[in-house]
Amino acid sequence: MLETITWTGSAARLLDQTKLPGETVYVDITDERQMHDAIRRLVVRGAPAIGIAAAFGAYLGVRTFNGEDAREFTAKLKQVCDYLATSRPTAVNLFWALDRIQRVARETIGATGASPPCHVVRDAQDAILDECIAMIEEDHRVNRAIGEHGLALLDSIQNPKSQIQNSLNVLTHCNAGGLATAGYGTALAPVYVGHEQGRRFHVFVDETRPLMQGSRITAFELRANHVPATLICDTMTASVLSQGKVDACIVGADRIAANGDAANKIGTLGVAILARHFGVPFYVAAPTSTIDPATKTGAQIPIEERDAREVTSFGDRETAPQGMDVYNPAFDVTPAALITAIITEKGVVSPVNEENVGRLMAKQ
Amino acid sequence: MLETITWTGSAARLLDQTKLPGETVYVDITDERQMHDAIRRLVVRGAPAIGIAAAFGAYLGVRTFNGEDAREFTAKLKQVCDYLATSRPTAVNLFWALDRIQRVARETIGATGASPPCHVVRDAQDAILDECIAMIEEDHRVNRAIGEHGLALLDSIQNPKSQIQNSLNVLTHCNAGGLATAGYGTALAPVYVGHEQGRRFHVFVDETRPLMQGSRITAFELRANHVPATLICDTMTASVLSQGKVDACIVGADRIAANGDAANKIGTLGVAILARHFGVPFYVAAPTSTIDPATKTGAQIPIEERDAREVTSFGDRETAPQGMDVYNPAFDVTPAALITAIITEKGVVSPVNEENVGRLMAKQ
Repeated sequence: MLETITWTGSAARLLDQTKLPGETVYVDITDERQMHDAIRRLVVRGAPAIGIAAAFGAYLGVRTFNGEDAREFTAKLKQVCDYLATSRPTAVNLFWALDRIQRVARETIGATGASPPCHVVRDAQDAILDECIAMIEEDHRVNRAIGEHGLALLDSIQNPKSQIQNSLNVLTHCNAGGLATAGYGTALAPVYVGHEQGRRFHVFVDETRPLMQGSRITAFELRANHVPATLICDTMTASVLSQGKVDACIVGADRIAANGDAANKIGTLGVAILARHFGVPFYVAAPTSTIDPATKTGAQIPIEERDAREVTSFGDRETAPQGMDVYNPAFDVTPAALITAIITEKGVVSPVNEENVGRLMAKQ
Repeated sequence: MLETITWTGSAARLLDQTKLPGETVYVDITDERQMHDAIRRLVVRGAPAIGIAAAFGAYLGVRTFNGEDAREFTAKLKQVCDYLATSRPTAVNLFWALDRIQRVARETIGATGASPPCHVVRDAQDAILDECIAMIEEDHRVNRAIGEHGLALLDSIQNPKSQIQNSLNVLTHCNAGGLATAGYGTALAPVYVGHEQGRRFHVFVDETRPLMQGSRITAFELRANHVPATLICDTMTASVLSQGKVDACIVGADRIAANGDAANKIGTLGVAILARHFGVPFYVAAPTSTIDPATKTGAQIPIEERDAREVTSFGDRETAPQGMDVYNPAFDVTPAALITAIITEKGVVSPVNEENVGRLMAKQ
């Protein structure tokens, strides 16, 4: 698999996903402003990957702090984190990761009472970097666990549509694959884990307008991993479902509310409604870091609106008349009632409701 | 309004819709091969416009016939029509128009027993051209009548979502506007007729992947006609509907079966299911020439599949990995049960079922 984000020893190296599938280009991010820009421009995207990227951004923003005053350092770290938090509003993993980094700093500073004061800041800096690297490794484990839980769920589907034994047809929207995380992905993790074990999958890939993460990224990584896949436009999802070609829909999430409502890439709500209409299970796969107990329902999730030019042009080519009004929300919210199950590293939530989400979050 | 198709005296002049919205270019079509190519490449598109274009194509294919043998002429006309019928498979107006032209030729030849035999073929050629020109004028009247029936239907919507008095928010998919016909359009006719009468409309325009007829053509013509409109990606339809921003969805059709199932641009089925989910009326507007009593149900409507490159590239830019498998159906079928009403020039069919469609078709 291509690496979404790695630490070079001096920089956070990101695969520039705006260039896919044409070019495989890496960029080395060396300060927090570059990371803010990379997140905003979707050089790195996907809730879990955004979280890790933001954590590295926080480190890069404080690694050159030269003072010895722990309070000044903490204030600087908060300032950097507050700044990085403005890069994108919807994916809660961003805020979760920045909180985690600040907690690590606080705990390190609190615990280093025995160290000479001049080492406290250095210790905190080292602890933050260690935490960032640990988050990459943790994401691999989390992805793997999501894949295993998801695969068990897929195995329970009765009378799969495919005539090929042990083969399932799944449909996914946007990219919640390896390139949205540091590892196997979330929505695609069950497919990859199953593929390793010799199961057969065929994936219908929604191209996912406006930014085509489906055709540019999901199609690209499925092909790179030799998983059979068919690309369709978002307008074709209903047609494919109506023909009985899909056993399950699986998507990722950018934020899941306490009641199980899930914000994900624009178009996900439509897929969920179509899946319900045709009696096909609709699964959301995400790490528990995407579940935000502080967000009571989906109505409280801020929905990012992006530049109209994402809709009105394509590369250099104008596809709409000049001056056209555009509405360009980057996410929509699928109500819990339309979600068959939420698949996390801690297990599966089904039926999806506040009680069951709360029970999952309480699990160690 | 821009003219979709006109007769110059020596050629059928088409607005090249593949060039919109960037360029307004007309092409003069002078033989049947050029017309076949223009229909296939979507230089002219929209079921009613395709019908008229095919009729002109038939004329252009026989206008240079120099013989005096009516049977030879009839055979040549049939050959030209059979050839034009292979340009696209789904829109029934194409076949309806070619049948109509052949019937006119037959009737003219049958009726000219009194003319000198050497004039029979010339008379038939003239009658075909007259019929083509009459079809343009007829389309204008039909569009207007659809607009008036549709407007009455929209007027009956209770508690419109818009806070502006006498204002309605409608959502449309693809282009069933003036540029899909010779006149006002079908789906957009109620909007244009209402607009002339001082009603206020706001139209949400689905961009309609892969060929972007919504953003390239519908947005273009609504803007040219000063109708307020907002462009959205197809992935945003569910979001807009879920926010209660839409009073009615209106689309055109390429073929309506005897039971009311309607084939239209890919993505229409999804819009119909979403509209039903959110309790928003879903209307299909089409001339009765789009209703094919010989097609019993939607399952019998042939669905055109088009080139994968429509999905994998955009202009010169590749948007999917090389060699990616693609499914690219150009149409889907919306079952009658999801259609609130069919709006035709003869009146409105609701509820949509075989009996009511049959009753409409029997009307003079």
